[in-house]
Amino acid sequence: APAFARKLTGLVAATFTPFTTQGEINITEIGRYIDYLAEKQGISSIFVNGTTGESMSLNVAERKILAEEWCEKAKGKMDQVIVHVGCMCLKDSQELARHAAQTGADGIAVIAPSFFKPNSAEALRTFLHEVSSVAPTLPFYYYHIPAVTGVNVPVTSVLENIEELIPSFRGVKFTGIDLMDFGQCVSYSQPHWSVLYGVDEQLLAALAMGAHGAVGSTYNYMGCHVSKLMSAFENGDLIQARTIQFKMQELLSYAKKQGFDLGVNKQLMSEVSGLCLGPPRLPVVPCPTARALSIAQKYHSIFPEH
Amino acid sequence: APAFARKLTGLVAATFTPFTTQGEINITEIGRYIDYLAEKQGISSIFVNGTTGESMSLNVAERKILAEEWCEKAKGKMDQVIVHVGCMCLKDSQELARHAAQTGADGIAVIAPSFFKPNSAEALRTFLHEVSSVAPTLPFYYYHIPAVTGVNVPVTSVLENIEELIPSFRGVKFTGIDLMDFGQCVSYSQPHWSVLYGVDEQLLAALAMGAHGAVGSTYNYMGCHVSKLMSAFENGDLIQARTIQFKMQELLSYAKKQGFDLGVNKQLMSEVSGLCLGPPRLPVVPCPTARALSIAQKYHSIFPEH
Amino acid sequence: APAFARKLTGLVAATFTPFTTQGEINITEIGRYIDYLAEKQGISSIFVNGTTGESMSLNVAERKILAEEWCEKAKGKMDQVIVHVGCMCLKDSQELARHAAQTGADGIAVIAPSFFKPNSAEALRTFLHEVSSVAPTLPFYYYHIPAVTGVNVPVTSVLENIEELIPSFRGVKFTGIDLMDFGQCVSYSQPHWSVLYGVDEQLLAALAMGAHGAVGSTYNYMGCHVSKLMSAFENGDLIQARTIQFKMQELLSYAKKQGFDLGVNKQLMSEVSGLCLGPPRLPVVPCPTARALSIAQKYHSIFPEH
Amino acid sequence: APAFARKLTGLVAATFTPFTTQGEINITEIGRYIDYLAEKQGISSIFVNGTTGESMSLNVAERKILAEEWCEKAKGKMDQVIVHVGCMCLKDSQELARHAAQTGADGIAVIAPSFFKPNSAEALRTFLHEVSSVAPTLPFYYYHIPAVTGVNVPVTSVLENIEELIPSFRGVKFTGIDLMDFGQCVSYSQPHWSVLYGVDEQLLAALAMGAHGAVGSTYNYMGCHVSKLMSAFENGDLIQARTIQFKMQELLSYAKKQGFDLGVNKQLMSEVSGLCLGPPRLPVVPCPTARALSIAQKYHSIFPEH
Repeated sequence: APAFARKLTGLVAATFTPFTTQGEINITEIGRYIDYLAEKQGISSIFVNGTTGESMSLNVAERKILAEEWCEKAKGKMDQVIVHVGCMCLKDSQELARHAAQTGADGIAVIAPSFFKPNSAEALRTFLHEVSSVAPTLPFYYYHIPAVTGVNVPVTSVLENIEELIPSFRGVKFTGIDLMDFGQCVSYSQPHWSVLYGVDEQLLAALAMGAHGAVGSTYNYMGCHVSKLMSAFENGDLIQARTIQFKMQELLSYAKKQGFDLGVNKQLMSEVSGLCLGPPRLPVVPCPTARALSIAQKYHSIFPEH
Repeated sequence: APAFARKLTGLVAATFTPFTTQGEINITEIGRYIDYLAEKQGISSIFVNGTTGESMSLNVAERKILAEEWCEKAKGKMDQVIVHVGCMCLKDSQELARHAAQTGADGIAVIAPSFFKPNSAEALRTFLHEVSSVAPTLPFYYYHIPAVTGVNVPVTSVLENIEELIPSFRGVKFTGIDLMDFGQCVSYSQPHWSVLYGVDEQLLAALAMGAHGAVGSTYNYMGCHVSKLMSAFENGDLIQARTIQFKMQELLSYAKKQGFDLGVNKQLMSEVSGLCLGPPRLPVVPCPTARALSIAQKYHSIFPEH
Repeated sequence: APAFARKLTGLVAATFTPFTTQGEINITEIGRYIDYLAEKQGISSIFVNGTTGESMSLNVAERKILAEEWCEKAKGKMDQVIVHVGCMCLKDSQELARHAAQTGADGIAVIAPSFFKPNSAEALRTFLHEVSSVAPTLPFYYYHIPAVTGVNVPVTSVLENIEELIPSFRGVKFTGIDLMDFGQCVSYSQPHWSVLYGVDEQLLAALAMGAHGAVGSTYNYMGCHVSKLMSAFENGDLIQARTIQFKMQELLSYAKKQGFDLGVNKQLMSEVSGLCLGPPRLPVVPCPTARALSIAQKYHSIFPEH
Repeated sequence: APAFARKLTGLVAATFTPFTTQGEINITEIGRYIDYLAEKQGISSIFVNGTTGESMSLNVAERKILAEEWCEKAKGKMDQVIVHVGCMCLKDSQELARHAAQTGADGIAVIAPSFFKPNSAEALRTFLHEVSSVAPTLPFYYYHIPAVTGVNVPVTSVLENIEELIPSFRGVKFTGIDLMDFGQCVSYSQPHWSVLYGVDEQLLAALAMGAHGAVGSTYNYMGCHVSKLMSAFENGDLIQARTIQFKMQELLSYAKKQGFDLGVNKQLMSEVSGLCLGPPRLPVVPCPTARALSIAQKYHSIFPEH
């Protein structure tokens, strides 16, 4: 499969799911969304139906429609579309993995099930294997985000001999702050793997540790700035990279003090991009308008050039 | 609706979901399961598709089939069947709630969504309301289990003015160990509410605090003993109630030292009951046979009469 | 030693440490404090220099002076004075234990060291043993309070064969909400042990589970009411016991919503008792006056008879 | 004061406290210890009586004797000696701070009190201020280690306007993995402050984020290797820096799998250095000999040149 030849690197935007004001998925906004990412943020790969995309609040039918639309509209505009197919229920994950293969996704990702938590690296690896095995030609990524899932199995343990079990394994989206575990993943990674970092506010630390790329929600609206951070890093200009990282931190610190959750994040994206992403879905609650405006204002004062 | 007239009290078994050895749901065992509970354990109400029933590892179609079968086979044998319809996804919960109403369930219960966690009592109450509103004639129960969900909103806060929002509200399955919160729920409960306790190993404490009944997995195989505990308590014989509670604790302490999770619990039920419940589904892993046997042996040594 | 003959039961007040407004210990208030407890609250035993007494914010010299004064002033007025001698540093604990023996304390208690946490029940038991061994004739109590110490070793494990190591062992102050662990402590306790409960807002639950008594800070100002709770419980009047427990819970729930910590608790005691307990010591900060007044007002509205 | 002119940078070893086999402090080993650090590990500054030094298990008198000896023996051999004077008890901290000033320490550090936890950044800052104010001419460092103390107040908040309150403030030992908080500390630091990192296994990440130096226990025996990491980083050779960091991670991952705590760490230092550091003090328990040997062997296989 050609996708196997292309290693996923650089900045990957974890997309929000557009909703109508009535709370139904709004696929009509997806084309414009992709154009915005490509043209205004310089983003060339997306991670859809993930945490930022509120996937766990979507039903299987909705996730399929969304996956189709993202893949369709991304044609010729995005380099890669990774579809997250993780669910609490293995059967649902398998159904979505099969569907992703038919839809033309460039890869699938699976989060650790978090209601019943795997009691060992082996149990988790077996779960991942069962999903991957129904879509064996699709590059497979494990999605680690312990602050949300409560699943603290070190990724290093999950990766032990993983290609024996999952030949399509191609990497990990590591959204955690244990950089010893992260560093060991990089250290033991195969050349065709992508070890991607997911805590946007400390990306520079992960780059120093050898990250191959990054997946995050803030790249939806800060991608253009973070691209410069990555270029600076690659050019050995740590001072410049740090300057941009500190600006991101200043914005996100400000946002956290105001109250920052997925609902706020989504509204902030709407404010910055002009896209109509609508409200989040329960149990996430809509963001008070004033809060998003205040954070957007801070954004523009920190990044005046944009 | 007649169900509204019957307050849920006493012991309620949270049922396991029978699987075939291939891991598919096995509804052919449900009739025998109900007979076992009624005849051997003296159980008259069940809570199906809950945590013990591995509901989050089942897809929506499976949960419907199971709900139908439990309701069908329970006719004339069980007093009440409460169907848990909680999901991460509100739409799925609503679909299951509508289905439960058609199926003849005596009530529905909803757990707090735990992937995206409600950020306030109000957000959680709104989520519960949205589920209840599609099945307004069914008695509605909130299912609180913070050790699993990580949702620590005090139940007392969730219940504030809840009947204004959810007229069908009838109670709570409180599976937590904060007995101040529990006591305040009892204290403020309406006469037609059921405040049910769900931490089997300290049921006696909750009875002292005024619990109206109990829902738990161990009543599947210890119901006959716990009935005696409840009778002793009602008769003012705390010494006897405590003796039985301490025996339960001894068994469960032993089990915990051996390693006790849902897979072990399920296999223990198979050993004690003789039912064929099959393995759990991933990410829960099957129990090593020796472990279930050892705990079953302990069970028989602690409760020799059975 | 005669103390060995007297089992510690009933309500034990965990005393606050009086400070001057300048923040120095104020032993001149101790006599009046004891009179207040004896005469107004019906308290006959005290637990001094514990968590409520801010012991970890006192130096060794201050703890000695306080222990002496409490023991001296308690003569003829209190049945038992238990001196808490736990410290992060074993040597300090030993020094205080030796001193307590000279001072005429009726027993000593030791909390689990919490900066470096014992990595097993055995490590903790050995630490306790080393303290007890320098005061072998004093009844010894282990003080379990995992929410503060972060030491979650089950008490049941700590107590395994403890009398072989600590012949003076006489019981535990169990300030936790795992009532299976608590119940197993009661179940395995020797006749001369006291298994005392320390979470005041759910005392009734622990009584049902077989608690021999209670140690807590709220008995400083609610002892007279909780005595009635205990009498009601002993007389089999659970309804009355529950009514009082629910009132306590209502007060403490209210206090928690206002912000309730040791500083507030201390100021509340000053308000209710009229004693001059002064401010807490850093890092605990003084209570805003309005807050203590508001909680005191709630106290008087809930318990109008006092 | 001349010390104020010298910014603390580079590698700082957090020293172990030597004990006799009977468990008493063994100051006779301190001279040899300093020689070892200077000659074999290339270390020029030390942080004494900290977490690695088991300070919370020492009494005040012992901490004074140790501080004196470290300062005395370090003369002419170490650039700076920072004495940690943090205690649960403010009075003890003040006594040690005064003593450190007399002893000729180059600076003092204070950890957040962790039994009673400060309920705000302001409460913590006030506590730190009260310690610093008795030794106003000594450079003052805040020591942040939330995994041990449970005090999660963001350092960024603690540092707000801190020089107005603590004119002698000179920096922070940041032993945490929230690198947004760390980055913001660097970003807002004054030129005369030292923002030092304390999680050895991910030092490279902190260097990228702008760390001015590092304080840690592993520099006692890996200082010579980590010096090369720092040089490589300063020279822009990230590949080489990463290679050394990954080796450290491999060793520490191995150690963690074997069971790695302060007792093991101390014994490992004895094995590698040949110094007689003795056992740890309770509640830390001695390391099984085989475990330290196995980790030392791994050390030599990973760093064969040493």
